[in-house]
Amino acid sequence: PAAMGGSAAAGKSVDGGGRAAPRVPVPEARPFLDTFRANLKETFFPDDPFRAVVRERGFARRAAAALRYFFPFLEWAPAYRLGTFKSDLIAGITIASLAIPQGISYAKLANLPPILGLYSSFVPPLVYAMMGSSKDLAVGTVAVASLLIASMLGAEVSATENPALYLHLAFTATFFAGVIQASLGILRLGFIVDFLSHAAIVGFMGGAATVVCLQQLKGMLGLEHFTTSTDLVSVMRSVFSQTHQWRWESVVLGCGFLFFLLVTRFFSKRQPRFFWVSAAAPLTSVILGSLLVYFTHAENHGVQIIGNLKKGLNPISVTNLQFTPPYMMLALKTGLITGVIALEGIAVGRSFAMFKNYHIDGNKEMIAIGTMNILGSFTSCYLTTGPFSRSAVNYNAGCKTAMSNVIMSLAVMVTLLFLTPLFHYTPLVVLSAIIMSAMLGLIDFPAAVHLWHVDKVDFCVCAGAYLGVVFGSVEMGLVVAVAISVLRVLLFVARPRTTVLGNVPDTNIYRRMDQYTTARTVPGVLVLRVDSPIYFANSGYLRERFTRWIDEDDERTSAKGETGVQYVVLDMGAVGSIDTSGTSMLDELKKTLDRRGIQIVLANPGSEIMKKLESSKVLELIGHEWIFPTVGEAVAECDFVLHSHKPGMVADGASHENMV
Amino acid sequence: PAAMGGSAAAGKSVDGGGRAAPRVPVPEARPFLDTFRANLKETFFPDDPFRAVVRERGFARRAAAALRYFFPFLEWAPAYRLGTFKSDLIAGITIASLAIPQGISYAKLANLPPILGLYSSFVPPLVYAMMGSSKDLAVGTVAVASLLIASMLGAEVSATENPALYLHLAFTATFFAGVIQASLGILRLGFIVDFLSHAAIVGFMGGAATVVCLQQLKGMLGLEHFTTSTDLVSVMRSVFSQTHQWRWESVVLGCGFLFFLLVTRFFSKRQPRFFWVSAAAPLTSVILGSLLVYFTHAENHGVQIIGNLKKGLNPISVTNLQFTPPYMMLALKTGLITGVIALEGIAVGRSFAMFKNYHIDGNKEMIAIGTMNILGSFTSCYLTTGPFSRSAVNYNAGCKTAMSNVIMSLAVMVTLLFLTPLFHYTPLVVLSAIIMSAMLGLIDFPAAVHLWHVDKVDFCVCAGAYLGVVFGSVEMGLVVAVAISVLRVLLFVARPRTTVLGNVPDTNIYRRMDQYTTARTVPGVLVLRVDSPIYFANSGYLRERFTRWIDEDDERTSAKGETGVQYVVLDMGAVGSIDTSGTSMLDELKKTLDRRGIQIVLANPGSEIMKKLESSKVLELIGHEWIFPTVGEAVAECDFVLHSHKPGMVADGASHENMV
Repeated sequence: PAAMGGSAAAGKSVDGGGRAAPRVPVPEARPFLDTFRANLKETFFPDDPFRAVVRERGFARRAAAALRYFFPFLEWAPAYRLGTFKSDLIAGITIASLAIPQGISYAKLANLPPILGLYSSFVPPLVYAMMGSSKDLAVGTVAVASLLIASMLGAEVSATENPALYLHLAFTATFFAGVIQASLGILRLGFIVDFLSHAAIVGFMGGAATVVCLQQLKGMLGLEHFTTSTDLVSVMRSVFSQTHQWRWESVVLGCGFLFFLLVTRFFSKRQPRFFWVSAAAPLTSVILGSLLVYFTHAENHGVQIIGNLKKGLNPISVTNLQFTPPYMMLALKTGLITGVIALEGIAVGRSFAMFKNYHIDGNKEMIAIGTMNILGSFTSCYLTTGPFSRSAVNYNAGCKTAMSNVIMSLAVMVTLLFLTPLFHYTPLVVLSAIIMSAMLGLIDFPAAVHLWHVDKVDFCVCAGAYLGVVFGSVEMGLVVAVAISVLRVLLFVARPRTTVLGNVPDTNIYRRMDQYTTARTVPGVLVLRVDSPIYFANSGYLRERFTRWIDEDDERTSAKGETGVQYVVLDMGAVGSIDTSGTSMLDELKKTLDRRGIQIVLANPGSEIMKKLESSKVLELIGHEWIFPTVGEAVAECDFVLHSHKPGMVADGASHENMV
Repeated sequence: PAAMGGSAAAGKSVDGGGRAAPRVPVPEARPFLDTFRANLKETFFPDDPFRAVVRERGFARRAAAALRYFFPFLEWAPAYRLGTFKSDLIAGITIASLAIPQGISYAKLANLPPILGLYSSFVPPLVYAMMGSSKDLAVGTVAVASLLIASMLGAEVSATENPALYLHLAFTATFFAGVIQASLGILRLGFIVDFLSHAAIVGFMGGAATVVCLQQLKGMLGLEHFTTSTDLVSVMRSVFSQTHQWRWESVVLGCGFLFFLLVTRFFSKRQPRFFWVSAAAPLTSVILGSLLVYFTHAENHGVQIIGNLKKGLNPISVTNLQFTPPYMMLALKTGLITGVIALEGIAVGRSFAMFKNYHIDGNKEMIAIGTMNILGSFTSCYLTTGPFSRSAVNYNAGCKTAMSNVIMSLAVMVTLLFLTPLFHYTPLVVLSAIIMSAMLGLIDFPAAVHLWHVDKVDFCVCAGAYLGVVFGSVEMGLVVAVAISVLRVLLFVARPRTTVLGNVPDTNIYRRMDQYTTARTVPGVLVLRVDSPIYFANSGYLRERFTRWIDEDDERTSAKGETGVQYVVLDMGAVGSIDTSGTSMLDELKKTLDRRGIQIVLANPGSEIMKKLESSKVLELIGHEWIFPTVGEAVAECDFVLHSHKPGMVADGASHENMV
């Protein structure tokens, strides 16, 4: 049959014995450029985003479709009705009442002037309302990115000694973050973000929330000096080295408001109808706190207050961006990391889209969020995205379209124009309480327990990220989490599972013997299965592992006096891909097994595998007649040859064991 | 049937209609520590290296077995016979005649005193003969590692201005290389080396050979000043900026010897019986060249010569190792990179072992090579490994055991004690010719063509490594090659192939429709297959891709007026693993498809998948009754329900499309 190897590609062939046997076809060769283009498309445009545009005929219609693609509000705005507006109005005002105190708090967390939190809730939501495709996302600043800005910029530029430079670098970092986000979207590289697994994000967010809470000890205890490090050890040392500086007024006020906020949150969680109770709590706290300070003059008794907030809309900051050497790299690095972290907003948008059964195009969202940050950096805003908590409030408040963001933006505008003096007496400790209560919601302990139950490696990723953030730095946590995640993928390929398959009685089906306890081996035939692509990273391992399976089987059978292995059937069904190291490995394996008098048989190789086997001549070496579409057929053939005592090419090899 | 989900794990169950259907069992939970231990063993001890030791009874016998494990010569030495010795003697003398001129040449390449090349062919082969398990490896220095030492150490310490420090750093780097090699072996981390794929090595070696040849232009042209950079651009600039310095005597001599060496190599390749012709050619060239210079006094006419070589055996260098700050890190870095590169020797040993059908334990070899380099660094040797060319000569000369290395070592010892003055007049240009002819053999153009034909990505890895080395630096080539290789693995997981399966007529087998052209779809049922584990890196992609398959199928069928998709069968046969992102994705997919009135069905999930599905509660959500061991059974069930017009749970979901 050896001469037939090449010509047997037609799907069916007749072997030497005259029996008809179905064969595995080698797919036709396609031109290299075609394959390349198809691969590119599958890698970068798996969702075929321009389908709607390409479907249209004529330039004008296509241009209109493209405009609608990039500015989704053109899609919904024409059909906008009063009923929808009422829902959006309520949702918008609700999120504005949350955005104002949170904005001020997070700006303080980033060591930026509090007014920036308001600026950042004015321009970006307007941009997002035009370009974003989520109906539920509420735009605003986030605590983790704020902390990152503080720790990364603060490591090189002091916010207290050089506030102007620090501010300008924050704008520049925001600009770079936007550019990076938009570029990732335009270059269709959104999948890079997928390498931050859910487990990594749970650990990272939990760690960041812990660190942010620790930072609030400054405000809660009324301390004036505090470490610039964010790790647990430094913070604890800083707190306990100045116990004599703790202000009881601050502690009492802070704990009181924190308690109030946590109780309202707990209540709203139990009674989802009253979501507005916890949504309104921060603003209530700010008002109560301000009134309290105003009437008791607590600002003279160690309770720090916000002080003057400038009236008026966002000043233009485009001229403040720093593109000159010493600090540009710092801003770029900060922008890169915060920008990637802020892409979390896309996952938030996606999860709400799932509830309402509409689709979010991740790459398009990146462009929207990126543009929002670029324009934000021109108008005195710092990094914004779609925080989960605020979007959840928006969703619960019944928002229908991105119009709720416009309403919020208008409410903030009114605040900026007329209401800023009201925040003069707001105590900082209330802001700390607001941040802490928001952060405690980010520590997702049940999720970590779930990870432990389902997947230990994912739990390690999560724990690694958490510990990295808490004991090292935010960046370190990120690096640890990504490293463990990538290592897991590499290890999966480097050490693939190989299993022995057995025959399920009364069928011609072969299944893993460790899973299907009823499966039985066939004497003289060893069926092995590989669960991963055969690549350079595992071809050496697989060669050794196959040999060990065969040796073990030989030991077992010779102990029982049965016939040893004469056929090794490799189930290639789960081998998704093979490279040249893999084909060489099969080549070597074939030669080694020939010397031991064992025939190698392949079952169910996919089209890519067949193509590679053919072009590397391994197909010819093994013989096309030893390749079968199913394990059942392969074993049946082996069994047939074994029992008809036809020696075939196997016995030839067996006679000179040390042939070179 | 919904209530049965939990209890259906017993392997077989009876569904609502009364038909018996085989089910996919969930494997029993194993204690975490058991799984962990099994995974550790599979990852680090896949070859079960201590089997021979553990099998023995009693401490003394075990200790003896362990000694035999670490010192393989204890295995073969007792049974050593005169016939074997004769073969080893011939092979040993042949490789010694190659080792002496090559050793001197490569030491010059590393900018080290030429005598070090001889020292390095004396001690390390003795160590390897005791500890190594390859019978064919011939120990010696290699050109690429020599070049790396020159370029990495030379970047910070000048070999001409500060020769003593440079020499000591070379010993220190060798020491660290040995420590790293031995540690990798002891920690069973040999698989890290697997991440240098064959393709990467082809490109890298080709690039390094090109660079080494370019460096030889100095010797060939008789130049005195030369760039310390290794990249093509710098070398060409250096060569052509001093055309007036070219010495024709040097050029003529060099080209003559190069021609001679290449002709003998070509001849030996055509006539393998005369392998010794090319093996003896370098020594012949050295002798001829030395005689020529001695009689013509060409050293006074621009032909540089080696000059005095000290008589005597290796001096002890253990006190020369540098463990103090400024330069220790440099030595460590050089040791790390050269040490990893030198592990190539293991692959060489393995490929010869394959011919003779014996086994090489990679981790044990690392310990042997590492020890050899550590002891080498104590006795004035620099980095050694098992070069391919010399081992091939050893093999062709008929070596039987590692004794041939001992013979070579003794021959080099005799040379060191008595014959060094003979090399006084050896012209450097001959050494350049020897290096160039050896290097031209490393540029494996046919291998690169083979890579292009079989696998375009591997070709990119190869070309990347080559260009990185030639236009950047050796380290850059290495980084490029590893980066592309790892990216390929990650991309395989990030963008797995999904395919539609169809029924092969007259069977209940389902196969990929792009491969088996006869396969046909079943109306109302879409069978999808994923070719990779479902991990965080692809769960988002897969969710979108599945949706697109369903949408496309719906468009196609509705255009024809057929029934749309009512069942999606996911063939999990090739899904080797799943993490929590993957289970969440299935959870979301199930809910999304429920809303569209489509039932999700799983076929052939492996035991790990079943375990994860159960612990994440996704099994309960999908329903154990919708999971089948084969695609055939899954489709049969769907078809049965479709044609018996039993609405089931599917129609329930279809009625409220916007249910939240």
